[in-house]
Amino acid sequence: MVTGGGLTMKRPAPFFQQAQPVKYRWYKPDRKVLGKRMDEHMRFAVCYWHSFASIGADPFGVGTFERPWHAPGGDPMQQARHKADVAFELLRLLNAPYFTFHDLDIAPEGATLRETNLNVRRMGEVIEKKMRASGVKVLWGMANLTSNRRYFSGAATNPDPDVFAYAAGQVKGALELTHDLGGENFALWGGREGYETLLNTDMGRELDQLGRFLNLVVEHKHKLGFQGAILVEPKPAEPTKHQYDYDVATIYGFLQRYGLEREVKINVEQNHALLAGHTFEHEIALAQALGVFGSIDMNRGDELLGWDTVHFPTNLPHAVIAMYQIMKGGGFTTGGLNFDAKVRRQSIDPDDLVVAHADAVDLCARALLIAAKMIEEGELPKRVADRYAGWDGALGRGILGGRQSLAKLATHIEKNDLEPQPRSGHQERYEALVNRYI
Amino acid sequence: MVTGGGLTMKRPAPFFQQAQPVKYRWYKPDRKVLGKRMDEHMRFAVCYWHSFASIGADPFGVGTFERPWHAPGGDPMQQARHKADVAFELLRLLNAPYFTFHDLDIAPEGATLRETNLNVRRMGEVIEKKMRASGVKVLWGMANLTSNRRYFSGAATNPDPDVFAYAAGQVKGALELTHDLGGENFALWGGREGYETLLNTDMGRELDQLGRFLNLVVEHKHKLGFQGAILVEPKPAEPTKHQYDYDVATIYGFLQRYGLEREVKINVEQNHALLAGHTFEHEIALAQALGVFGSIDMNRGDELLGWDTVHFPTNLPHAVIAMYQIMKGGGFTTGGLNFDAKVRRQSIDPDDLVVAHADAVDLCARALLIAAKMIEEGELPKRVADRYAGWDGALGRGILGGRQSLAKLATHIEKNDLEPQPRSGHQERYEALVNRYI
Amino acid sequence: MVTGGGLTMKRPAPFFQQAQPVKYRWYKPDRKVLGKRMDEHMRFAVCYWHSFASIGADPFGVGTFERPWHAPGGDPMQQARHKADVAFELLRLLNAPYFTFHDLDIAPEGATLRETNLNVRRMGEVIEKKMRASGVKVLWGMANLTSNRRYFSGAATNPDPDVFAYAAGQVKGALELTHDLGGENFALWGGREGYETLLNTDMGRELDQLGRFLNLVVEHKHKLGFQGAILVEPKPAEPTKHQYDYDVATIYGFLQRYGLEREVKINVEQNHALLAGHTFEHEIALAQALGVFGSIDMNRGDELLGWDTVHFPTNLPHAVIAMYQIMKGGGFTTGGLNFDAKVRRQSIDPDDLVVAHADAVDLCARALLIAAKMIEEGELPKRVADRYAGWDGALGRGILGGRQSLAKLATHIEKNDLEPQPRSGHQERYEALVNRYI
Amino acid sequence: MVTGGGLTMKRPAPFFQQAQPVKYRWYKPDRKVLGKRMDEHMRFAVCYWHSFASIGADPFGVGTFERPWHAPGGDPMQQARHKADVAFELLRLLNAPYFTFHDLDIAPEGATLRETNLNVRRMGEVIEKKMRASGVKVLWGMANLTSNRRYFSGAATNPDPDVFAYAAGQVKGALELTHDLGGENFALWGGREGYETLLNTDMGRELDQLGRFLNLVVEHKHKLGFQGAILVEPKPAEPTKHQYDYDVATIYGFLQRYGLEREVKINVEQNHALLAGHTFEHEIALAQALGVFGSIDMNRGDELLGWDTVHFPTNLPHAVIAMYQIMKGGGFTTGGLNFDAKVRRQSIDPDDLVVAHADAVDLCARALLIAAKMIEEGELPKRVADRYAGWDGALGRGILGGRQSLAKLATHIEKNDLEPQPRSGHQERYEALVNRYI
Repeated sequence: MVTGGGLTMKRPAPFFQQAQPVKYRWYKPDRKVLGKRMDEHMRFAVCYWHSFASIGADPFGVGTFERPWHAPGGDPMQQARHKADVAFELLRLLNAPYFTFHDLDIAPEGATLRETNLNVRRMGEVIEKKMRASGVKVLWGMANLTSNRRYFSGAATNPDPDVFAYAAGQVKGALELTHDLGGENFALWGGREGYETLLNTDMGRELDQLGRFLNLVVEHKHKLGFQGAILVEPKPAEPTKHQYDYDVATIYGFLQRYGLEREVKINVEQNHALLAGHTFEHEIALAQALGVFGSIDMNRGDELLGWDTVHFPTNLPHAVIAMYQIMKGGGFTTGGLNFDAKVRRQSIDPDDLVVAHADAVDLCARALLIAAKMIEEGELPKRVADRYAGWDGALGRGILGGRQSLAKLATHIEKNDLEPQPRSGHQERYEALVNRYI
Repeated sequence: MVTGGGLTMKRPAPFFQQAQPVKYRWYKPDRKVLGKRMDEHMRFAVCYWHSFASIGADPFGVGTFERPWHAPGGDPMQQARHKADVAFELLRLLNAPYFTFHDLDIAPEGATLRETNLNVRRMGEVIEKKMRASGVKVLWGMANLTSNRRYFSGAATNPDPDVFAYAAGQVKGALELTHDLGGENFALWGGREGYETLLNTDMGRELDQLGRFLNLVVEHKHKLGFQGAILVEPKPAEPTKHQYDYDVATIYGFLQRYGLEREVKINVEQNHALLAGHTFEHEIALAQALGVFGSIDMNRGDELLGWDTVHFPTNLPHAVIAMYQIMKGGGFTTGGLNFDAKVRRQSIDPDDLVVAHADAVDLCARALLIAAKMIEEGELPKRVADRYAGWDGALGRGILGGRQSLAKLATHIEKNDLEPQPRSGHQERYEALVNRYI
Repeated sequence: MVTGGGLTMKRPAPFFQQAQPVKYRWYKPDRKVLGKRMDEHMRFAVCYWHSFASIGADPFGVGTFERPWHAPGGDPMQQARHKADVAFELLRLLNAPYFTFHDLDIAPEGATLRETNLNVRRMGEVIEKKMRASGVKVLWGMANLTSNRRYFSGAATNPDPDVFAYAAGQVKGALELTHDLGGENFALWGGREGYETLLNTDMGRELDQLGRFLNLVVEHKHKLGFQGAILVEPKPAEPTKHQYDYDVATIYGFLQRYGLEREVKINVEQNHALLAGHTFEHEIALAQALGVFGSIDMNRGDELLGWDTVHFPTNLPHAVIAMYQIMKGGGFTTGGLNFDAKVRRQSIDPDDLVVAHADAVDLCARALLIAAKMIEEGELPKRVADRYAGWDGALGRGILGGRQSLAKLATHIEKNDLEPQPRSGHQERYEALVNRYI
Repeated sequence: MVTGGGLTMKRPAPFFQQAQPVKYRWYKPDRKVLGKRMDEHMRFAVCYWHSFASIGADPFGVGTFERPWHAPGGDPMQQARHKADVAFELLRLLNAPYFTFHDLDIAPEGATLRETNLNVRRMGEVIEKKMRASGVKVLWGMANLTSNRRYFSGAATNPDPDVFAYAAGQVKGALELTHDLGGENFALWGGREGYETLLNTDMGRELDQLGRFLNLVVEHKHKLGFQGAILVEPKPAEPTKHQYDYDVATIYGFLQRYGLEREVKINVEQNHALLAGHTFEHEIALAQALGVFGSIDMNRGDELLGWDTVHFPTNLPHAVIAMYQIMKGGGFTTGGLNFDAKVRRQSIDPDDLVVAHADAVDLCARALLIAAKMIEEGELPKRVADRYAGWDGALGRGILGGRQSLAKLATHIEKNDLEPQPRSGHQERYEALVNRYI
């Protein structure tokens, strides 16, 4: 593991105690499931931000992780290279096929946009070499439009168009790097695209700004010839009181309004779903039903806490339901399973990162196997299909085919004094059936 | 307590102790505000369901109100007439210009759809006479598609198309009566249009059913020549775990998907907004920004309870912000201010109904006066406009006018190493300014 | 569906399609686990209220279950006997060792307290015979102090002392019957002991009333010689806005204030814990730490809904953590595992009751086996003990033994400029360890 | 405004643009209300932490305030003096009688406990001079046991007793300084006294540690002869998943368990109440009823966000209800009204601090005037007293006086077949009555 410039830093002290790749209990990359390799289904990624850029601070306390590349007074670019070394070491230990990143995760922010984009480019070259050497790929890139003070009132939705322009410049850099690294998607999360108080906010205006911004990104993608998907990630609040990309349904309406519903897909996150009052599987299923499902952030929130805790996923039945929903809808195309999760602030040992990811990978692999069995045996989908069988009859087809009216339907009921007899929803049987697979 | 048909019906025993109309402190129907009469702005309505159909039960206890028209063993149509007498007495005491109703609020459900619609028609005639005599009007009518057992798995979204047809027949009756009574809107609330568990649910199919249903309603409206608006009312959950009409943004996306965004408007309710994680004013402002604002249900929820408590509104600053938002957007057209609120289960005195409504009317009138002053003085809107002034410059107009690209914007920043300087959001000044008006 | 008194009553028409007892996958009553039989550990109970008294209504819809014993116009005592027949048939099918009940679940309410208590007594005799015949026992009895209109402002905390007296009379009857039936506990849930608005409430006074009431119950228990535990069940809200028995910590403070902390134990419910912002295991662990753990209501709430949904438990890891916590604390004494859960409103088939209970029993049995293995292998408890090992040293013992002061402790740190080095909390390792057992 | 050592820093550039004290609309210190001066009632305080120590960061963004005393590379003690200058300038502008502080708000943390306590002492001397010059007093002091990495697993509840000792040493210093400055209270907020996962936590042990710690503080207080109150501040969660000082009821049970219910009082915060599922007035009323009411943190949370937003209070009716509850209970003794609130992250202008505080002071003053009128006119308390009048009769007094039993009460009801008649709770009338005062 060689890193850094100069003579003094050729071999950093090993960061992880674990030296050998993780031996998974459930994840076997080449095992065939539903006609594909397990790694082709899971397409899992480690995210740069939580694992390497985070310092372990919280609103009531300072950073606890004390990663060597965050040591005060260090050379930022050298530290960025050190960080990249450790990142690729973790990817190796986990046998991870993908990673995800923001521009400012991999490179230090400069004093100007030019300098920032230059730093990002230079670190992109470092990373490209590591990718080639390891075979690891980019699931998606992003631009960090949330941390810097200039974005505190929004990036695309800022009252100042210069901030919009700055954000555009940053996205351009990040999108182009993602393209050059062969990234399979480019993602946007509008953490500051929202408001703190309606009193000082012109919502209609800000929505138009945001619609314009997203169109610019799509236009640039096509100009570049980038073949990956543009992903938008919903979250209802935090950091802002209200964010415009509230949930899947909200984004879908937004995309239609600005003519983007065929250009943009959605990256669904468990914790963000929860904060919006939805289950993870609801958001996945809705995105699938609307034709905008893209990818997922696989983490979990704490149902009793009102902020984004982004724990690693640990609950097997929850993971099974999510994987079942995804696989039932045909699985991922350009998307994948991004572990957008962080070790707890008290988990200060480097190897906590290894353990956390390894358990999550195994959990998802096990969930995939269970979900595959549910699909192969077909009992659950069959029951659902039977439940709606009436809609395949003449009346149902007539209604959906546009050949009915209120008047005709009223007559249908009234002429024979029909009283439809309800049938049990059998929720407990469905739940018991799932438990038979767990 | 004498009631019923025949001669004795002319004078029901007085239900309310109060005999004289409420003397309002703030509500003066003919007072001019922002160029219109106060009653033209407020267009307030008493709802039939909470005030006359409710029995005061809750999930852990039986009904407490013991209204005479709910006495066991009575003749249902006679009881419906008694109920109507009392309803119009309350409207008189409150000097209320409007009421709202479901088909099954005003008339007893029959053994068949034909019988139900006949009952509704007959009670419609009774009510029409009272309307003519009193000058009270219908703000909107609705069909109750939630209470009956047949709808337990949905009305339009039921797995059984016969249930869809039954619901269609019921809506036809209610819509036609609303039209004949000169109603100014027809509203739909999809209380059962949602799911309890995704395991037994085909969401895409159900959304298509719902889209078809709403289109049928719009088609029938045009066939009738009904000039009022079709309103849909969002609510995220309760009674179902997840309802398809979650919030304003969700409905907007739904309307676009099914080609209805110019045909249907939204009725926003405070308590439903809250349950969806939004403020009332957020939902109003969003509906306005998207061009689908229709009307409001003026009540309040309890922020600490997770169900629909539908209290009468009591908090002046909250009412001010809502009225300010509505008036700033131009006020109501066909819509109005429906007191979709119920007296508490312990408020068993008939006159509690009078007091509750009277305080709510006064609260809204006072809020209207304050909001009008805020608009007339213009300080708040002016500050907001100033905040976004940059967007009226060349850069801003260029961006929104489609004359910019990521590349051009990047160059704009990079060529001069621009670093936009953030300006204070001044939230506390805005809040203090509002408090100056309270 | 034949029922009723006389000779035909001997064999009610079969209510359930299933005729043979459930074949469990995991629950084997006589299997030895941690040195006891599985049924001695689990002590599970079916509750009368949700399974037999509930009609399947919700706040927006009428009853859907249409149980024959709820048919309008029937003889109430005969219907109560029919209900009891079906209850004991379900207990037989499930091989359930226990049931729980309120006075008004088993018998119809009379026109007076005397009549009610007489009805309860008479049905108690019917039930006693069935208990003797089947070997089924009472886990606990209760008095229903929530449904009747007279209790709408509280039972013990009512502004009217006559209502307090009425409640006392009802509890006396229910407690005596429970005693006579050999019940192992008597439980109180203060569903109406709380307030709707502080404006009309004297909280201090109501707390004193409640403290007095609970003391009267304890005094009567001793007078009777009842050997079971008195249980109080926390719930934060619903039906009232705020209930006095909010959570375990609140009840513990209340018990101390009124001198009852050695007389009363707590029945912890999963869904109520959740509504109070706690996990189930938190409430169990806290009750154990405070020495007031009594029993549990084994159900689950919906984390995204704000009301008491009381689903049957279905999530294996959640059940494991709860069972682990209970077993680690020594398991149940007089308490047990009450399935305080209801089938969904759409689950109208009688056999849905069988399926729901059977899956829940199996889930808990499986969770018990996993929890037992965790305890037997001891890895998890050992890690926790190691984490606190410092407290077994001189300093730790000195602090807890009362031999330290702020001044001495300050000196201890300052004299050597000590800087304690934090150790990783290893949350992810603990979670991964648990997943190894699932 | 003289500050700093050395020649170079005699006159910092004025920090606030406003130079003249705030002209309040409602707050008149010497105005008589309910027999006391307004400032004697309100006893309001500015808190050091939010206004001077905060940098305007959030979990997704860096600091935005850029206060000069936080400039990188500055001399920490000189910066602390600069901060103190600005703090006392704000106190002057606001005519504030009190402030509150943590040790680490006023002085930089040192490399050792000794150094830290020395820094705190030295800054204490600086502040003492300013207090003498200005007449401003300390409402309470605190020790910051949350920020430093050593406390990440708790201070008193840490698995390492050395951390307990370190915290003891820090509290000793802060308590002694508070005593020497004539502080009227000493407060503890256990931000890290809780757990992240039960899996690695021994709750019983940690509660005992916390009980011991609080006893040590009380012992030291008495040794010092400190006459102020020891306050504990409840908060349910954040930063930890579960904090031991969850709410007023929890702390009350804790105090009793560790023999402290007569030694310790509670500081109630609006936002913390909300996060625990309570209204502010509930927590105040409960603390009063239990005899442990001490003081308040006057801020507000956002009911729709799940974290501690600590806005400045802005809602008049909410403030009225809180002030009414406090005044009804006799007002403050050693406690007061601490503005534990922060300007928003976007409110970067120094004068935003002035505006925010000034509006909050005026809001509370106005609320006090309204509350005083409600108390003086006495209508609301009278209605409540009437509601419970039955408890002043023979039956009520007999019950509360311990002269009744379940058996006697049952007989009381049964002998005359009493059926208590419920009376309306009149919630809407109470609410309308309050609105008459607003």
